[in-house]
Amino acid sequence: MKFCPNCGVSPVAHEVPEGDNRLRHICRACGEIHYSNPKIVCGTLPVWQGKVLLCKRAIEPRYGKWTLPAGFMENGESVLDGALRETHEEALTRVNAPQLLTVLSVPMINQVHMMFWGEMPSHDFGVTPESLAVQLFTEDEIPWDEIAFRTVKTTLEHYFACRRAGDYTLHVSTISH
Amino acid sequence: MKFCPNCGVSPVAHEVPEGDNRLRHICRACGEIHYSNPKIVCGTLPVWQGKVLLCKRAIEPRYGKWTLPAGFMENGESVLDGALRETHEEALTRVNAPQLLTVLSVPMINQVHMMFWGEMPSHDFGVTPESLAVQLFTEDEIPWDEIAFRTVKTTLEHYFACRRAGDYTLHVSTISH
Repeated sequence: MKFCPNCGVSPVAHEVPEGDNRLRHICRACGEIHYSNPKIVCGTLPVWQGKVLLCKRAIEPRYGKWTLPAGFMENGESVLDGALRETHEEALTRVNAPQLLTVLSVPMINQVHMMFWGEMPSHDFGVTPESLAVQLFTEDEIPWDEIAFRTVKTTLEHYFACRRAGDYTLHVSTISH
Repeated sequence: MKFCPNCGVSPVAHEVPEGDNRLRHICRACGEIHYSNPKIVCGTLPVWQGKVLLCKRAIEPRYGKWTLPAGFMENGESVLDGALRETHEEALTRVNAPQLLTVLSVPMINQVHMMFWGEMPSHDFGVTPESLAVQLFTEDEIPWDEIAFRTVKTTLEHYFACRRAGDYTLHVSTISH
């Protein structure tokens, strides 16, 4: 942050406000404190007849790698609304009775990834400008070495573990390097 | 946003960028798009010998009303880190084996509240500058009409329902008006 979004003054200080204990962007001219907080990435793991649906990324980062349909949660929607919106935007599909499967914090990039799984109501899906390909995979067919993000790999692994156990539980963890 | 935080130009336009489908703050001078996304509020429901711990708010909004220890998740931490930090900051206490109990979207204010429950390892707790009082309550003693936020009420209700059922499940829902 180079200029104060409230009054336009530059530079914006980076210091600990009175009564706080963290560095914030604070404008010494107008006094405004500009907070920055983690963002939520939400998406789904769609399942059709035992196969899971993956999208081949058409955008950076990780162009050409496989991912689950997911993206940044937007203002004015719920986590589930966002997950279903992204599922449609990236794969033109839907899931029934979505159940939250993973909550994965990624503190290094200030993100929390929240993924739901659900059965697709039909075989309908398709590519969009965000995906080079959208495809169903059996567990054996998953391109594990070509998965775009660790949160996606963790979600897939947890899903298959739950399926083997016959019990779909929530997995909450932190991805650190 | 009145001034572009990147280049200082005013006004900042509010329009749908090319390839997007939502209104964003976008600077026509430098081209920067400034996204705004929901924030996470994280906290805990601490339990000691069957009683739950509530804090009487010493700050606005809802000054004087009762709440669970919770606050905005910060950059560089996990959801659980944030929940435990807030629990210490507001009530000087801890919980063992925290388990995620509620994920409550509040789209009207662009927030997602995530609350863990856990047993306190000891009777230790206390007031801080953020709380007028910190107190343990049996279910019958809960001041239901003096609870600060609907997400707190929903979390308490879900906790007691789980306790009666002997099964602590995750509750995911949306608070709309």
